[in-house]
Amino acid sequence: MATTMFKLSSTFINSSKNYRFVVGLINKCNFNTTNVTMRKERDTFGELDVPDDKLYGAQTVRSVMNFPIGGIEERMPYPVIVAFGILKKAAAKVNIEFGLDKKIADAIMQACDDVISGKLYREGHFPLVIWQTGSGTQSNMNTNEVISNRAIQILGGKLGSKDPVHPNDHVNKSQSSNDTYPTAMHIAVAMELRDRLMPGLVALRDTMDAKSKEFDKIIKIGRTHLMDAVPLTLGQEFSGYATQLAYSAERVCAVLPRLHYLALGGTAVGTGLNTRKGFAEKCAKEIGNLTGIPFETAPNKFEALACHDAMVEVSGALNTIAVSLMKIANDIRLLASGPRCGLAELMLPENEPGSSIMPGKVNPTQCEALTMVAAQVMGNHVACSVGGSNGHFELNVFKPMIVSNVLRSIRLIGDGCQAFNKNCAVGIKANTTQINKIMRESLMLVTALNPHIGYDKAAQIAKTAHKEGGTLKDTAIKLGILTAEQFDQWVKPEDMLGPK
Amino acid sequence: MATTMFKLSSTFINSSKNYRFVVGLINKCNFNTTNVTMRKERDTFGELDVPDDKLYGAQTVRSVMNFPIGGIEERMPYPVIVAFGILKKAAAKVNIEFGLDKKIADAIMQACDDVISGKLYREGHFPLVIWQTGSGTQSNMNTNEVISNRAIQILGGKLGSKDPVHPNDHVNKSQSSNDTYPTAMHIAVAMELRDRLMPGLVALRDTMDAKSKEFDKIIKIGRTHLMDAVPLTLGQEFSGYATQLAYSAERVCAVLPRLHYLALGGTAVGTGLNTRKGFAEKCAKEIGNLTGIPFETAPNKFEALACHDAMVEVSGALNTIAVSLMKIANDIRLLASGPRCGLAELMLPENEPGSSIMPGKVNPTQCEALTMVAAQVMGNHVACSVGGSNGHFELNVFKPMIVSNVLRSIRLIGDGCQAFNKNCAVGIKANTTQINKIMRESLMLVTALNPHIGYDKAAQIAKTAHKEGGTLKDTAIKLGILTAEQFDQWVKPEDMLGPK
Amino acid sequence: MATTMFKLSSTFINSSKNYRFVVGLINKCNFNTTNVTMRKERDTFGELDVPDDKLYGAQTVRSVMNFPIGGIEERMPYPVIVAFGILKKAAAKVNIEFGLDKKIADAIMQACDDVISGKLYREGHFPLVIWQTGSGTQSNMNTNEVISNRAIQILGGKLGSKDPVHPNDHVNKSQSSNDTYPTAMHIAVAMELRDRLMPGLVALRDTMDAKSKEFDKIIKIGRTHLMDAVPLTLGQEFSGYATQLAYSAERVCAVLPRLHYLALGGTAVGTGLNTRKGFAEKCAKEIGNLTGIPFETAPNKFEALACHDAMVEVSGALNTIAVSLMKIANDIRLLASGPRCGLAELMLPENEPGSSIMPGKVNPTQCEALTMVAAQVMGNHVACSVGGSNGHFELNVFKPMIVSNVLRSIRLIGDGCQAFNKNCAVGIKANTTQINKIMRESLMLVTALNPHIGYDKAAQIAKTAHKEGGTLKDTAIKLGILTAEQFDQWVKPEDMLGPK
Amino acid sequence: MATTMFKLSSTFINSSKNYRFVVGLINKCNFNTTNVTMRKERDTFGELDVPDDKLYGAQTVRSVMNFPIGGIEERMPYPVIVAFGILKKAAAKVNIEFGLDKKIADAIMQACDDVISGKLYREGHFPLVIWQTGSGTQSNMNTNEVISNRAIQILGGKLGSKDPVHPNDHVNKSQSSNDTYPTAMHIAVAMELRDRLMPGLVALRDTMDAKSKEFDKIIKIGRTHLMDAVPLTLGQEFSGYATQLAYSAERVCAVLPRLHYLALGGTAVGTGLNTRKGFAEKCAKEIGNLTGIPFETAPNKFEALACHDAMVEVSGALNTIAVSLMKIANDIRLLASGPRCGLAELMLPENEPGSSIMPGKVNPTQCEALTMVAAQVMGNHVACSVGGSNGHFELNVFKPMIVSNVLRSIRLIGDGCQAFNKNCAVGIKANTTQINKIMRESLMLVTALNPHIGYDKAAQIAKTAHKEGGTLKDTAIKLGILTAEQFDQWVKPEDMLGPK
Repeated sequence: MATTMFKLSSTFINSSKNYRFVVGLINKCNFNTTNVTMRKERDTFGELDVPDDKLYGAQTVRSVMNFPIGGIEERMPYPVIVAFGILKKAAAKVNIEFGLDKKIADAIMQACDDVISGKLYREGHFPLVIWQTGSGTQSNMNTNEVISNRAIQILGGKLGSKDPVHPNDHVNKSQSSNDTYPTAMHIAVAMELRDRLMPGLVALRDTMDAKSKEFDKIIKIGRTHLMDAVPLTLGQEFSGYATQLAYSAERVCAVLPRLHYLALGGTAVGTGLNTRKGFAEKCAKEIGNLTGIPFETAPNKFEALACHDAMVEVSGALNTIAVSLMKIANDIRLLASGPRCGLAELMLPENEPGSSIMPGKVNPTQCEALTMVAAQVMGNHVACSVGGSNGHFELNVFKPMIVSNVLRSIRLIGDGCQAFNKNCAVGIKANTTQINKIMRESLMLVTALNPHIGYDKAAQIAKTAHKEGGTLKDTAIKLGILTAEQFDQWVKPEDMLGPK
Repeated sequence: MATTMFKLSSTFINSSKNYRFVVGLINKCNFNTTNVTMRKERDTFGELDVPDDKLYGAQTVRSVMNFPIGGIEERMPYPVIVAFGILKKAAAKVNIEFGLDKKIADAIMQACDDVISGKLYREGHFPLVIWQTGSGTQSNMNTNEVISNRAIQILGGKLGSKDPVHPNDHVNKSQSSNDTYPTAMHIAVAMELRDRLMPGLVALRDTMDAKSKEFDKIIKIGRTHLMDAVPLTLGQEFSGYATQLAYSAERVCAVLPRLHYLALGGTAVGTGLNTRKGFAEKCAKEIGNLTGIPFETAPNKFEALACHDAMVEVSGALNTIAVSLMKIANDIRLLASGPRCGLAELMLPENEPGSSIMPGKVNPTQCEALTMVAAQVMGNHVACSVGGSNGHFELNVFKPMIVSNVLRSIRLIGDGCQAFNKNCAVGIKANTTQINKIMRESLMLVTALNPHIGYDKAAQIAKTAHKEGGTLKDTAIKLGILTAEQFDQWVKPEDMLGPK
Repeated sequence: MATTMFKLSSTFINSSKNYRFVVGLINKCNFNTTNVTMRKERDTFGELDVPDDKLYGAQTVRSVMNFPIGGIEERMPYPVIVAFGILKKAAAKVNIEFGLDKKIADAIMQACDDVISGKLYREGHFPLVIWQTGSGTQSNMNTNEVISNRAIQILGGKLGSKDPVHPNDHVNKSQSSNDTYPTAMHIAVAMELRDRLMPGLVALRDTMDAKSKEFDKIIKIGRTHLMDAVPLTLGQEFSGYATQLAYSAERVCAVLPRLHYLALGGTAVGTGLNTRKGFAEKCAKEIGNLTGIPFETAPNKFEALACHDAMVEVSGALNTIAVSLMKIANDIRLLASGPRCGLAELMLPENEPGSSIMPGKVNPTQCEALTMVAAQVMGNHVACSVGGSNGHFELNVFKPMIVSNVLRSIRLIGDGCQAFNKNCAVGIKANTTQINKIMRESLMLVTALNPHIGYDKAAQIAKTAHKEGGTLKDTAIKLGILTAEQFDQWVKPEDMLGPK
Repeated sequence: MATTMFKLSSTFINSSKNYRFVVGLINKCNFNTTNVTMRKERDTFGELDVPDDKLYGAQTVRSVMNFPIGGIEERMPYPVIVAFGILKKAAAKVNIEFGLDKKIADAIMQACDDVISGKLYREGHFPLVIWQTGSGTQSNMNTNEVISNRAIQILGGKLGSKDPVHPNDHVNKSQSSNDTYPTAMHIAVAMELRDRLMPGLVALRDTMDAKSKEFDKIIKIGRTHLMDAVPLTLGQEFSGYATQLAYSAERVCAVLPRLHYLALGGTAVGTGLNTRKGFAEKCAKEIGNLTGIPFETAPNKFEALACHDAMVEVSGALNTIAVSLMKIANDIRLLASGPRCGLAELMLPENEPGSSIMPGKVNPTQCEALTMVAAQVMGNHVACSVGGSNGHFELNVFKPMIVSNVLRSIRLIGDGCQAFNKNCAVGIKANTTQINKIMRESLMLVTALNPHIGYDKAAQIAKTAHKEGGTLKDTAIKLGILTAEQFDQWVKPEDMLGPK
């Protein structure tokens, strides 16, 4: 019954009639493809129908038909497509120096701009899913087909004719899927780290830093082992969060050197067969120009194709950030727990109604979204590591899976930090009444009496107060150990906040 | 430049003008929402614009605005929405017995059918992402809003009026997000296991079993530690794969008892406050009727809300299946490696062109997709475990993250097995020439001589043959230990395939 | 400087003089091996010195020399050695039926008893580490060598002479490392699940169940999203923990069918070459007799050697249990947080002094040990999955790594539950004063007024009380909505604990 | 039966008679503790028996009794104890400047030297396990007790008298467990990275680099997707491995800045209460002097106590290294597979006998140990991440679990690389006959003909050769497309190894 729609997409589709349906499902979430007119395109396996309004060709169609795995959620991540646009543009430009006809190169570069801008992605020309060949060859060919057809359009040719712009001979010139896909991985991840992760991370760090200053006079009870301990300021507590986030940014920076190495120029097995001397270096420089990121050609292309240690390393940094975010968001929701029966030291912004049966209930929903993100990133990391460890010989064939996990982690952290920052962190307020009240009630302030009356008498006060439920001050006076004046003079939380 | 489209969606959107843009992005992948007319809807936090062509209400809009985390890939999984439709239908039916107006109940049930069929999902009425409140409250409210508005339409009322069908008082009657969301999790996962995972798994098992019989006379070299060992049949080797897959199905069945427990009836904290005696049991029975799955009301509702151990357990079974699939797909691509420089014992179907520069190259792409799926499932499992371990008191608030990982694993395994089965497994052929050739060359057949000439002389033959590169037979004759007739009589691989 | 001791053990040791030192390090943690007299033993690679007081032989020595990886912590787990003793005893008994000399068999069986009792392990005859060949061959040979030498002692022969009891021909008769090691894995894990995990799990479940009854009249505030919610009893809350633990035991039982299959009889590649018909079945039965566990011979031996899905499945169950324990121990320490500045609903036993500078500080140390155990088990599980997914052809060669992780998880959970149960759970007391106080202060009790005064007025009371910091009752009276009598009559937490 | 020994250790031990037994089990693996004489020691919970030959005191005994979790394998890692010795020595020296009696400080420093040298660890004075309080307080107190008693011995005092050297007042002066334990974590990990991990990693890298040069003229078939591809040199292939290992070392270096921050000076909650200004900085400098590692005092002590992101980050680097090692060791065993029925391009050293029934069988056992190590490190990493994400407020209480996983990963990688390097990598030989033979047979060399006869004719040759089983050369001649001379002139693998 209900699952009809999804079941169909997992059916093996081997006629071009059925293909219309599959690609409809995956690409546009609608079923109205029956009236689409089709053209014929060929690859070395034969002829296939391609929708007339699509720029891809036979190899893309074949992949759609052979890999009906998952739905629209499983599409090759958009940043990979953009990165391919950048890469192909750079290669076309460099190839002019090595003999590519300038008119063709210019058309290719113009077509690449439509990939880079997202226009062609939004129009549905990139329907492939992650779960295809592990080298990403089919997405490389999808890009080659789309760019060549777009360039053919620009030059007034006929779609699918491969003339005057050939997907392999011109768009893929001096390239192989085996070096372009890993190059696109590095470009996409480096850009997303800069453009999506860093802004979120830095915004949240700045807020935590500001809160640390805002709260720097609010003295509160410290808690270790979840139990009452000696005091610190709320500002000091938030300075820990700010530091975690500052280090998060440092961790990302620490992995960049290896991320900035590009595989392009290695072609099929890393030797650079079919390229020209200088091609690799010039392309890396050109990609650097297009992105503003200091990419370099990888010193060793065999490593760059056969493994994705750099991706696993980036994922490790993201995993550490997730661990930090889990701690921070957890602390904040615990400190805000209540309002009557929890710790209630913080008040979080109220963003949406709580329970329909419990009036006034407001929940730390931004903390929940962020901790869910953190758990997801920790899982994505394991997927990367497993994929990264399973390469064979000259090629790791877990590429689309690896990069999609890294990109998803980046996006979730980046977006999650932004949402958490703006909808929660900036609006955090201290409940100073409660903070002060419970801090004053704490028995751990007795520590301040050690130098004056000795550990044993201090312990006697604390234990009596604990047993009888009294305050330290009352108990001390009642026991005849201290006067009220002495207590007030000696037990000053504000003197317990740093070294002497 | 290129990332404009994505950046916008991560911007904090706090006006209903901007909301149009966000929901456009997430829901339909297009930007043409500027001409959509809007109506006003209210919740306890105030009034908000809702697109006139959408059935959801204010709480859904608020979630879209507060959680711009990820894009369309991050939507609440479709099977959860379907499960909510089933749950709400069952609750409406049972609520008639407890006093719900039959006309209202009937309209609700009819509206639920449009949820169950996928119609309302495809029309974009469920725009929320996974990364919202960890209880899934917002998706429960999204469902309540959509169903009540649809029922209002059916009864001729005004959208957004909550009259005559109220999202809380009627659609959510005797329910809480805290018991409905976990119930939807169990329904969705149980259905997907049955309808998506099992068919893929069983189809692949059947193929492996058939191959095991097809290949049962083909004697081949065994390999342990990747090194030549004593022989077995190719059919025996495939029987191992068939057994792994049969056990995979058993593993799923072994976890079902706890998956079939439903939380419904626990309401907010597990006590069942605001429900009536018998409600829980009747609902479970009705959901069983609607799905054909033997659901029961959970014996302990506190466990059912506060943790998702049953989900972690299911995920553990999926993880084991992933481990099995990784082994099987890895073996098959290794056995098919070549065609000239690998093991070349198997020939896989050729589904698409290989390299553009290397004619005739065909790659084991279905094995690659399946091993990528396996790695992903192993990662998803860790995300589930981390989320499952982090519940607090009466509620685990990693629910949407947990269920989305389990459902994704199920879908990837199910679809992946189908694609692998149909595009690879059924077409596997044995390269009997090569299998026989290398088996005959193997030095490990010398084992058969032990009883006749003793271990020491047998070892002498093997080591000499290894050193000089000769065959066992030639070497044995050359060393004067055996005649050709003796060798042929004693060294019979077909006698080495089982106990005596 | 400080690391001298450890550095030496990682040095490659290739003379038998150095060997004395290495084995001293690993085996007995002392360095006084210089006066040990040595005998010569041989394998097919030549002659080696073996300490006269040790029963192992040349192959064991060679493994010690070739794999100086880790120290005593890395030894092959004791339960594997015991399981080997059981397996070898069963095989010897069955081999009598297939022609093994009864005198030799009896000596072997007597020697096995010294393995099973732990005597020979404690005396240092099993020095090998986990990090050896991935088939566990060297540990199988270690066992064969020790048992044959012990049997030779029993029969009055000369150590190392292999006469009258040969390690291969007699102790390993009809066996291969490839089927014995996985058999030992299953025996060891099944026994440890029964003897170590289950007692700890069941003891803790029983305590939680008893606490659930003990606390069944104590009404407390419920917490969802960490925020105050409607009430439940402390007994209900503990019933959730008891249920989690009961399901934990069910989860273990659910995986046993596949764990009870034994590989023995498969020999080198699963065909059973060199065994006799009936050997596999008889051995499984005999092992069942020796252990009291219903082992069966594996229906498919190829699966049983080539993968360890059953281990990954067991590990998945242990992972789910870890997830449960993390939740339970976390809740308990949060509920016991304080004593003044936390939730303070529970009081845990005080087992050791807290801080040296903070008198009266007592920490939830048993919760900490148990949550650390849980995290470790979650990590061990990933190691198992990675190892399990990486088998090749007829043999998975991650066997010692896999089984050591499963056994460690079992032991940590079993011991951890026992310690937690006896040193924490049984002594948990409810702080009824605090529980009652904060429950009474909660604003969520307002829910009980809905049927009497409507949601809106109830909300007004709750919000006013929240803003002004008053109680519900005082606020209701002050607002003129209710009398004190009405409030007391209608707001009864004891009526909010179940369905009507 | 067999598990008696282990069962006892998990029994709750609450009398000092039983304690003798438990500590005997854990500490020295023997049972002869019945004749040990005992002295009384006290802590604030009362008096306990301590063995006269042990230097620890009551708090250590109490931990042994309360945490009987696991056996000797679970002891607090030795490098942590050494690090504590270093830390306590540095603190004593700095404390002289802040008023600690020089005679007492000198005795403490001398006692510390016996900790640092390993002497006191080997003598059994550090019996505690990992599974204790999550702050490591008990191991800090164990160290304080041992050092104070050793210093008392040096000064001629009475064991257990705390006079003239007090474990808290003198040895722990200006310290808390909460800052000392994380400091010891950083010291231990930094030292082990330098002294154990790096030597193994660098040695293996050097070997791979040397092999890369040794093999730089050997042209072989490349393999992508496990299928035959265009050629490269064996030296180029090994250069990939060398590069992975060089990057591994870079990855470790990239995480050091945050590892070199020390928490010491933060005391209980990070404020530095009870320390003196300058203490933190001077201690970090002194620890730097003692270790030769550029430690600094942590800029933010709240972060340094409340989370262990730096450990998770280090673990991430180790995880990446494990991923690299898995790839390398896997490739090598696949390339060495055979000898007759595998790829057989490499020959590995023969270190031990293979199968007892299959003469001449030699297995890649070093690859197996190393890949098992890699899987373990990947699992350890998840345990670290889970523990790291679960801190609360001012203190993360998963410290011993986290550091023990990081240290175990370091040790396994370090030792594993050393063993693999010396017993396998240095002895790898190329099987040039086989390499050349299969490379010449490969159909992928046809790629070289593209420029001369066009892609289509080249494809015709390749496909015909594939179908008929012929060589490229024979097929080309037979098809009349090329002469033998042309083929030899144009198809030169040596021209296919780099860009033009």
